Amino acid sequence: MIDVSRTHWSAARWAEEIDRRLTDGGLEPLVNIDREDTREFDAIFLGGGAAGRFGASYLRAMGGRPLIVDRWPFLGGSCPHHACVPHHVFSDVAAQLLLERTFSGQLWFQDMHGKTVSILPIVEMFRRGRTGPHAFMNYQSKEQLDLEFVLGSPATIVDAHTVSVAGQTYRAKNLVLASGARAKTLSLDGSHLKGVFDHATLVDCLDYEPGPTAVVVGGGKTAIEYACFFNATGRRTIVVSRDRPLALIPDGDTRAYLLDRMQEQGMEFLPGSELIALDGDSEGRVKSVRVRTPSGEIEVATDFVFTAVGMAPNSEAAQHALGIDVDANGFIRTDSRMRTSVPDVYAVGDLVGSPMEMFKARKGGMYAARNIMGEEAHYHVGDYPDFLHTHFEVCWLGLGEEQARERYDNVVVLKLPPDNPDGIHVALPAGDRMMLYAMMKPHLSGFQKLVIDGASRRIVGAFHVGSGAKDGFQYLAPMVRRGLTVDELGEMDELFLNPSYFIQLCRLRAGSKVLRGM
Amino acid sequence: MIDVSRTHWSAARWAEEIDRRLTDGGLEPLVNIDREDTREFDAIFLGGGAAGRFGASYLRAMGGRPLIVDRWPFLGGSCPHHACVPHHVFSDVAAQLLLERTFSGQLWFQDMHGKTVSILPIVEMFRRGRTGPHAFMNYQSKEQLDLEFVLGSPATIVDAHTVSVAGQTYRAKNLVLASGARAKTLSLDGSHLKGVFDHATLVDCLDYEPGPTAVVVGGGKTAIEYACFFNATGRRTIVVSRDRPLALIPDGDTRAYLLDRMQEQGMEFLPGSELIALDGDSEGRVKSVRVRTPSGEIEVATDFVFTAVGMAPNSEAAQHALGIDVDANGFIRTDSRMRTSVPDVYAVGDLVGSPMEMFKARKGGMYAARNIMGEEAHYHVGDYPDFLHTHFEVCWLGLGEEQARERYDNVVVLKLPPDNPDGIHVALPAGDRMMLYAMMKPHLSGFQKLVIDGASRRIVGAFHVGSGAKDGFQYLAPMVRRGLTVDELGEMDELFLNPSYFIQLCRLRAGSKVLRGM
Repeated sequence: MIDVSRTHWSAARWAEEIDRRLTDGGLEPLVNIDREDTREFDAIFLGGGAAGRFGASYLRAMGGRPLIVDRWPFLGGSCPHHACVPHHVFSDVAAQLLLERTFSGQLWFQDMHGKTVSILPIVEMFRRGRTGPHAFMNYQSKEQLDLEFVLGSPATIVDAHTVSVAGQTYRAKNLVLASGARAKTLSLDGSHLKGVFDHATLVDCLDYEPGPTAVVVGGGKTAIEYACFFNATGRRTIVVSRDRPLALIPDGDTRAYLLDRMQEQGMEFLPGSELIALDGDSEGRVKSVRVRTPSGEIEVATDFVFTAVGMAPNSEAAQHALGIDVDANGFIRTDSRMRTSVPDVYAVGDLVGSPMEMFKARKGGMYAARNIMGEEAHYHVGDYPDFLHTHFEVCWLGLGEEQARERYDNVVVLKLPPDNPDGIHVALPAGDRMMLYAMMKPHLSGFQKLVIDGASRRIVGAFHVGSGAKDGFQYLAPMVRRGLTVDELGEMDELFLNPSYFIQLCRLRAGSKVLRGM
Repeated sequence: MIDVSRTHWSAARWAEEIDRRLTDGGLEPLVNIDREDTREFDAIFLGGGAAGRFGASYLRAMGGRPLIVDRWPFLGGSCPHHACVPHHVFSDVAAQLLLERTFSGQLWFQDMHGKTVSILPIVEMFRRGRTGPHAFMNYQSKEQLDLEFVLGSPATIVDAHTVSVAGQTYRAKNLVLASGARAKTLSLDGSHLKGVFDHATLVDCLDYEPGPTAVVVGGGKTAIEYACFFNATGRRTIVVSRDRPLALIPDGDTRAYLLDRMQEQGMEFLPGSELIALDGDSEGRVKSVRVRTPSGEIEVATDFVFTAVGMAPNSEAAQHALGIDVDANGFIRTDSRMRTSVPDVYAVGDLVGSPMEMFKARKGGMYAARNIMGEEAHYHVGDYPDFLHTHFEVCWLGLGEEQARERYDNVVVLKLPPDNPDGIHVALPAGDRMMLYAMMKPHLSGFQKLVIDGASRRIVGAFHVGSGAKDGFQYLAPMVRRGLTVDELGEMDELFLNPSYFIQLCRLRAGSKVLRGM
């Protein structure tokens, strides 16, 4: 092991050390433990991803002593390694390529006609680039957050207070399980053929340039996001899903706008369908898939299959060592204080199930820390804003129009573009990153909708397709939970051209005692 | 005149009509007045821009009867015609070109080496595209907002209740002046040479391709935004300003990050300098400018000068017809109910002076409407979030770090990248539109800072450079005004990767009773 406790490595130095370990797994663990601190650890965080790292930071800020152990040589977990960060890189590529294809050969844009963009160099670019965020996490965790950690070596749970890692045994008053989840694999023959990827293996293992056809299995966030990226590179992209795609977006207009745009880009959807076989060639590489569709079975030739069919928890070790209570899918059960069935053992993050979102992981860690440090603190996820990417950024919160109409008698909707035969071509909404569309291809400039209970004048739902609304939805969400009205929104100060037109749309209508839609 | 009151034109039809009038000023005015409504008008809005149109909409929603008159054949005013909208188009182009130049020849990006992008086709593209938003405003105003208007003809103020336009005289209980402001011209010989533009004339009049050098006069928002656009096209760009550029951003780190990036792109700044002469050729076209700098006088050969040296109000007609009270710069004085010195005459928008921002224009119109309709409603602008564009989107609110340190004993700062020699290369912040930078050129991925009063734990300032924070700053601002704390921010649900890292940065520190920066 390498004792880094007295070093003050720069981010660049951390990047070197991480890089070497990622390319050569055999290097020694990195140990940052203050040998002069004789206090017992308040908690060992098993896993230094979003949940573990934020939990440990919060516990440390409260004056406690956490230890993080992680098999990877970096903190931050799967997010910067092969989840949120590459997903955002690929979504940025998709947005950029949509722009370049739409304006191909116009103004200064290059001719993209018939051009297929290589996926492998983009993945390799990410693989090189990810050590930057990794390095920063280690730097920040050590130098700014004063966290102690053992990285780059798998840990073994001995008991509810004891973990063994890199030849050492560490004891703590509590154990916080934060080992995350992994993509489920298809339970089909051929699902381990070369050329079949999930979000993690795509980033970690892709070593050839995929051919002209991508098959994506799944209809949720990850499936759609990656499918749009593959499509934007110029590949035929077929999305095979049991349910209709984007079912998680609870508003019909928003879904329809997105599906129209994806189909316009040539994406093919096979809803109500299922992959039933993957066939390989003599070298163990996938060469075709068979799909059962509502109108019969089809075969698609492809050397590139991407699956996004849900997540499975990394709970086996905890089950085995601690006999911990899990649900039917293996996710660890906790109460609202993040306590598991085993005394002094907490669980946080993707390991405890949905929603597998960053805020829940981080806040779960924070609530575990508060309880460990003697506060009684209950975490209830409640309503939260959500997002995904197609070629666009899509954000939403609250109720869709249809849901609102079930619940309220007088639902008022404010939306852009307006709902008429000409609407899609009216060049609004326009906003940052959407301006060239607004000027030259208005129907690609986005969609937005505010759903209002006309009686109370309260906002009950908000939907945005375009770019730049994500930050706003974060702050809008707690306001909406507390009863934000059309009148209050209309009093705010917009930064025009703001991506969401919610403030100004409200102001156009707020003068009326009886609200009307538009 | 053409009576459009019984037509229901589509946005496309409106676009045709507007287009014809913009290319041939002689066409007949467009009159939308309900001849069957015998009520007196509650107010005539002189000018149908942001202030007039929103004021009229609000008054209409309250049950009143407004009439808008505007010399242009469209509603919406200067914003979509030659102000906010083209500025956003050009800023999007600057952001896009920064990306393409940074990754020139890498991945799928075209080779931009030595390539100058033509400005004229971009301006022409905007000129064609702007009728889309214009048409939508007319459509929305008539079909959705039930507004009455006379467009495409200049109006004459007869008295405080009477306006004459297109051969008709209209009377109303009140008059709302909303005729806006125009760019100041340089008071120098040669300022009317061909090749000298302001934001409006650039869009309306450019008819040649500018040469290799752009001279920009001014150091405020408009000057910097357009300078970045010219620079991004590949031109030598020289910014001549009396004060240091970006002085309006009240945070030193943020300004420094931006200036570094602009200089890195080759922009040249001459602060403390003044244009003293513009010299023309025999055809009346600018060929060079002379600049007095702190280190002496210099001459720059250029056929393209852009000036952004402040705004002058369009108040002459009101002064002449009504003897209305104005300030030393000609801006109309109003009280907090938007009332002028003349009974029953209100003034709103840029015509009443700073801040010349969309929210103030629109809200001014709304408050005038409320007072006209019998409510006592006072509008105080107060603190507001602000933004500008360089090659990046820049947002801010509240106090800069230096200002906060003057006011508070214990100022805590949370920022990214961290403040150390290696900081600029740490690949964070990353966010939508910034991902390729984060992976390949981290120092271009942005900057952000939260300024906190450590004693009260309240956020007192926020700064963001990158993309996608504009919407968030709108909603964050009222929260900050009401005393938002680090602890409350840390409880919110981020949509990761969110452009601003404020929520998660707060959460990393919020556990501590004594806040520390990072």
